[in-house]
Amino acid sequence: MQFSLRCQIICGMGNIIERLAVLGSTGSIGQQTLEVVRAFPHRFHVVGLAAGKNINLLAQQINEFKPRFIYYQNDEAQAHLAHTGCEFLSLEEIASHSEVDTIVIATSGKLGLSPTLAAVKAGKKVALANKESLVMAGEIITGEAKLNAAQILPVDSEHSAIWQCLNNEPQKAAQIILTASGGPFYGYSSAQLKGITVEQALKHPSWRMGRKVTIDSATLMNKGLEVIEAHWLFNMPYDNIRIVIHPQSIVHSMVEFIDGSIKAQLSYPDMRLPIQYALSYPERLPNPQLPRLDWRNIDKLTFDQPDLDTFPCLKLAIEAGRKGGTYPTVLCAADEVAVELFLAQRIKFVDIANLVEQTLEQHQVITYPSLEEIMAADAWARQKALQLASRDNLC
Amino acid sequence: MQFSLRCQIICGMGNIIERLAVLGSTGSIGQQTLEVVRAFPHRFHVVGLAAGKNINLLAQQINEFKPRFIYYQNDEAQAHLAHTGCEFLSLEEIASHSEVDTIVIATSGKLGLSPTLAAVKAGKKVALANKESLVMAGEIITGEAKLNAAQILPVDSEHSAIWQCLNNEPQKAAQIILTASGGPFYGYSSAQLKGITVEQALKHPSWRMGRKVTIDSATLMNKGLEVIEAHWLFNMPYDNIRIVIHPQSIVHSMVEFIDGSIKAQLSYPDMRLPIQYALSYPERLPNPQLPRLDWRNIDKLTFDQPDLDTFPCLKLAIEAGRKGGTYPTVLCAADEVAVELFLAQRIKFVDIANLVEQTLEQHQVITYPSLEEIMAADAWARQKALQLASRDNLC
Repeated sequence: MQFSLRCQIICGMGNIIERLAVLGSTGSIGQQTLEVVRAFPHRFHVVGLAAGKNINLLAQQINEFKPRFIYYQNDEAQAHLAHTGCEFLSLEEIASHSEVDTIVIATSGKLGLSPTLAAVKAGKKVALANKESLVMAGEIITGEAKLNAAQILPVDSEHSAIWQCLNNEPQKAAQIILTASGGPFYGYSSAQLKGITVEQALKHPSWRMGRKVTIDSATLMNKGLEVIEAHWLFNMPYDNIRIVIHPQSIVHSMVEFIDGSIKAQLSYPDMRLPIQYALSYPERLPNPQLPRLDWRNIDKLTFDQPDLDTFPCLKLAIEAGRKGGTYPTVLCAADEVAVELFLAQRIKFVDIANLVEQTLEQHQVITYPSLEEIMAADAWARQKALQLASRDNLC
Repeated sequence: MQFSLRCQIICGMGNIIERLAVLGSTGSIGQQTLEVVRAFPHRFHVVGLAAGKNINLLAQQINEFKPRFIYYQNDEAQAHLAHTGCEFLSLEEIASHSEVDTIVIATSGKLGLSPTLAAVKAGKKVALANKESLVMAGEIITGEAKLNAAQILPVDSEHSAIWQCLNNEPQKAAQIILTASGGPFYGYSSAQLKGITVEQALKHPSWRMGRKVTIDSATLMNKGLEVIEAHWLFNMPYDNIRIVIHPQSIVHSMVEFIDGSIKAQLSYPDMRLPIQYALSYPERLPNPQLPRLDWRNIDKLTFDQPDLDTFPCLKLAIEAGRKGGTYPTVLCAADEVAVELFLAQRIKFVDIANLVEQTLEQHQVITYPSLEEIMAADAWARQKALQLASRDNLC
């Protein structure tokens, strides 16, 4: 409390302005974060923006939000952005800067890990949309967060739901019930999955998201990564995390307490709501741009059990999470390579799981790995996955 | 906090023993309250029991729980209960006694009003299962509760759900979504309702409850009373209370916040859960006797809009609540008479609504009534309903 008060500026209107840095500002979550900022200009002030390769959009965002600090991956961008007068900092420097209150980690893949760690070490509020950070280094990140009184604010709709349901309950949850839309291929047989095209896999029935996470939703790998994330975020044993398929994506997750009472969080599926809640927490803000559920149009919510045989990625992820050590890192890295190969039409949809499984099988696990060992496992897994894909003539 | 600490005994085991009085102990809610007490003998201690006419069961309960204070309505009971050594007190004396921490008001009808008022005036924790108290005198009771730092702990499954969803949220709800099973005649037409028998109306699809509340559930009057109760308990305008039919009785109610996020509370329909939560609040207790939801057996939850034309009692109740003053008292009293006449097979099922409507139409409302004016309106309405029933040859 002391810390966050020190870090906030009281503006003339009596409101508290939250100073934000958005890492991955040109991606799907980054853009939706800036939509929320636009809706509350007196509440949020963007002081840092970081993007990968979409320099045109970053230039537009810099022009609109006038941040003090920027980062971009593309070296050629320097000529385009030099005139902005923004200070170029590394992701880690932005994430730990004294003039930033909340860091939105909206980068995808392992790129989010290092700035997340820098932010928690600096005791920041970390609005975390990047799954890989906790999957790869959950023990290190949650340990550092505790040590430095940093707050990890979940941005994923499922983890935001669990967080909202747990809010101020005096006791731990007995069980987390993670809902899953089932993705575009819910109900498909293994045989039907064989001919899936990139175009089909990119059509998610209920969420607008980036390409990597959309494919991970189609394989259910995304749900598996969320199980591992939930394990770390809510200190919940794997045995007490259940998955329920809920194709309408209206119930975003549930929490069961020791008395059998269950709390669920529901809303129209729109990522701006969990983003906004992470930024405004513990307050809630009225945002007329967010769509509301209309119970006149909802006649049923359906639930089903996940099919672990048809969607082996989910099983692989949960197993990797249970085994721990460097296994989740290898899972993430192999999946990232496999999804890239699939998007490049070099392997089939069903080969994503095969490639991840084979890479995991060949891994020599390190328990309680250091950050260096995690990064080494990541590099090993990427190389191994590529090697396996080419050996098997998958690509 | 100060108060509740002062009122609790620390027992040898280090647990806090809550001293309970159960008014209406032989009714459905009363018996289920005692089931919860039985499950946690080191946590709850029954110091007061009060019943109406079921003296045999009361005698058994006295023998088992050995309360210090008792009350019974039946004068003939004195001979049976004199040997117990229990002190006979009035309902109001038990409800305000210094040796009672929490009073469970499980009496049905207007009988609950006076002890509820005595309990809130004494600053007690009041586990309120009696709807009529708040419907008849919501303004007086909530005002006295505030003035005397009494806590009203809802026992109704719907209000418990709303309470659980609101718990420690820093802001008021934007909207309450009260779920209704729809009762045994959900989907029936007005024509189909004409021939309904007492036996049919007493078969509720999902809840085990007393006779009066079961009939009120069949007419949807119960849901109307709950709307008025929710208005007072949660200080919520009628325009912001919606009703959604949900026949499975698994989602017990929902709360929508200003950001559009909705929290719902779900459980297997069993009144012991909301009773237990009211008694153990803010803690939750593990009770293996309470059935759990099993998501392997739930494939869908359905929702529908209420049919106010076919179930006019719901409309009458909401209108009476909106108009306020003595109207809700007249609604309650006329309904109590009408349900009694129906149970005695002296009027038809559909005449319950007619009788309530006619009584309300003839009432000269008093705004901001005193307790005396409320009791006078109650007496007037009972007489008027009986008179109308006999004038119309309804009975």
